[in-house]
Amino acid sequence: MRSKRIDRLSGSLIREILQVTQRPEVISFAGGLPAAEIMPAMNFAEMPGDLRQYGPSEGEPRLRELIAQQLCNIGRTCAPDQVLVTAGSQQGIDLISKLFIDEGTVVALESPTYLAALQSFRLFGAEFLDLHLSADGVDPETLRTTFAKKRPAFVYLIPNFQNPSGACYSEKKRRKIAAILDEYDIPLVEDDPYRELMYDPVDRTPISAFLKRAPWLYLGSFSKTTCPGLRIGYLACSQKLFPFLARLKQASDLHSNRPGQWWLVDFISSGKYERHIEGLRPYYRNRRDLMHAALTQEFSEIAEWETSSGGLFFWVKLKQKCDTRLLLKPALARNVAFMPGEPFFANAVGQSGALRLNFSHSTPERIEQGVSILSSVVRAFY
Amino acid sequence: MRSKRIDRLSGSLIREILQVTQRPEVISFAGGLPAAEIMPAMNFAEMPGDLRQYGPSEGEPRLRELIAQQLCNIGRTCAPDQVLVTAGSQQGIDLISKLFIDEGTVVALESPTYLAALQSFRLFGAEFLDLHLSADGVDPETLRTTFAKKRPAFVYLIPNFQNPSGACYSEKKRRKIAAILDEYDIPLVEDDPYRELMYDPVDRTPISAFLKRAPWLYLGSFSKTTCPGLRIGYLACSQKLFPFLARLKQASDLHSNRPGQWWLVDFISSGKYERHIEGLRPYYRNRRDLMHAALTQEFSEIAEWETSSGGLFFWVKLKQKCDTRLLLKPALARNVAFMPGEPFFANAVGQSGALRLNFSHSTPERIEQGVSILSSVVRAFY
Repeated sequence: MRSKRIDRLSGSLIREILQVTQRPEVISFAGGLPAAEIMPAMNFAEMPGDLRQYGPSEGEPRLRELIAQQLCNIGRTCAPDQVLVTAGSQQGIDLISKLFIDEGTVVALESPTYLAALQSFRLFGAEFLDLHLSADGVDPETLRTTFAKKRPAFVYLIPNFQNPSGACYSEKKRRKIAAILDEYDIPLVEDDPYRELMYDPVDRTPISAFLKRAPWLYLGSFSKTTCPGLRIGYLACSQKLFPFLARLKQASDLHSNRPGQWWLVDFISSGKYERHIEGLRPYYRNRRDLMHAALTQEFSEIAEWETSSGGLFFWVKLKQKCDTRLLLKPALARNVAFMPGEPFFANAVGQSGALRLNFSHSTPERIEQGVSILSSVVRAFY
Repeated sequence: MRSKRIDRLSGSLIREILQVTQRPEVISFAGGLPAAEIMPAMNFAEMPGDLRQYGPSEGEPRLRELIAQQLCNIGRTCAPDQVLVTAGSQQGIDLISKLFIDEGTVVALESPTYLAALQSFRLFGAEFLDLHLSADGVDPETLRTTFAKKRPAFVYLIPNFQNPSGACYSEKKRRKIAAILDEYDIPLVEDDPYRELMYDPVDRTPISAFLKRAPWLYLGSFSKTTCPGLRIGYLACSQKLFPFLARLKQASDLHSNRPGQWWLVDFISSGKYERHIEGLRPYYRNRRDLMHAALTQEFSEIAEWETSSGGLFFWVKLKQKCDTRLLLKPALARNVAFMPGEPFFANAVGQSGALRLNFSHSTPERIEQGVSILSSVVRAFY
């Protein structure tokens, strides 16, 4: 007798795709993996022995200070005791689900949105209100009409270089959305893993920085900018919510691994982190531009896309709609993987006609080759 | 609007105690911390760079092999693909809660039992059937009468050197319990973090090794025998349950940290792990014997206890019952911390009259000093 939760456990499509992409001959645009060849070296030689012992559930004090400082620098006032270190920002999503979601709890989110957040919210029994997403963000008035019909437990937004769409909110929309959340006093969950991967200058002020009254939770990641294998991310939030989240963290895994936290403290406080990001930007910008050029050559007639100012993805919308899951098998047969668009929609979408393509993980040669193969797969499909 | 779950989030008594014990002048018998001074050195110099990338949700293949081999060696046949590496065995408990527990789900467990398991099961809405625990385990017939009244979703047992009581199941009871679980086809969750900390020879065959039909889940830990700061444990289970748990793990934190897994592979496969455990046993046996001697001197008139063949704790039962939470303040005022007995009972117990005392973390001098102070605190209380 399993829990009702298990009936809601999402299918294994993504797991299956990612397993196939382990084969070296496969050109994978499927995952959201950073490029391995420019990850920083990990050196634990100076790590003090006392980190072998159990540590605080909230995280290492020095790391919490550094994170709070970073948040203050980007406009979101935050004290160290509002920062919870997590096992990647995915765990932050799990803790937020635990904090807010009962069976039938309503969550408002962008359409399309991040797959693994959907998976977690759904697991806990959430129902979803879709917020239509444009390249410059959700229309603030949509929030108002949505709230008038049904009050969600929280709104989940990814304002910078959104996954999967690449959308980036305009400053005007950020301010207006914050004002409406304040007006209705609805909590904001702001997921911001891509903020440092900016290739063209845009406003990235957290929406939570504009809030005056509504509760906020801000999810941050080091996985896209350093080493995801460490599994260290964080969740910062309103003072009032913190004690609950700290106890939920304790019940989930006692605390996050300490070597990873120690390494990040060293990497950030020495200034290496900032310099490393400066190096990542041109590297990924080049891959983004290469994929854009390849798409222009191969997909112009059959698809449309926006080039995002940052992040890791292109969201390619085929002009002739189809269920893109059906393209997966023929693409994999030719050793190219991508992520079909359908699973990124909370409510059944039928035919999304959209492919999510990652550009960070493949070499320039493979980007060109893979886009060309994918184009012939799509053309052959119709 | 928080989830109903949050109303069930246990109080912060333990967190408060553990915070007080950070002060160096406090003699703490409260936590379950291994002795820092004999933890193995951590050396990451040889770690390959590809572990910086995202890894498999199930865990590193080599570590899964080594764990499966260990389980086979102790009688629990297990293939590597039945092993899920977790962020400490606490995360295994979280995943098991997610797998089985809806609001009102019935769980049968030892009385008293492990606090943080109770905390997690309760968070997800479990109701509890208490199984009275003797020094040699739960009476098998109790299981039968319990199941006749109400069928639990699973039975949670800690058969070796139980936390908090120190109980260790006899081989006869292990076999009988397995037979009854098979008869009723009720899943067993077997939590076994202390098994390697054996100071006198006793049977430790997993109960799950005797099962022929009932589903099983076995929780293992490296935190008590190596470095808890790594946050690496594992959950092994029946083939049928594995796919659900792997997906729940993925939704919780994608995967466990890879440096910790790499270090354990190196430590175990080099034979250092086994040699290290050989060194731990006399070290902790000595502390156990010292605490027993101190208790004999200070507590003989006012309390009773069993000396466990292993583990980390004494469970000291005062002859004159009282709510031991009331002893905490006067003990802390004299810089001694212990864990009151009441929170270890799933259903309200009123006055447990029991103190849980940890002997692994304090030096011999502090063990003697602390037990003596504690005795005078108890005597002054009546």
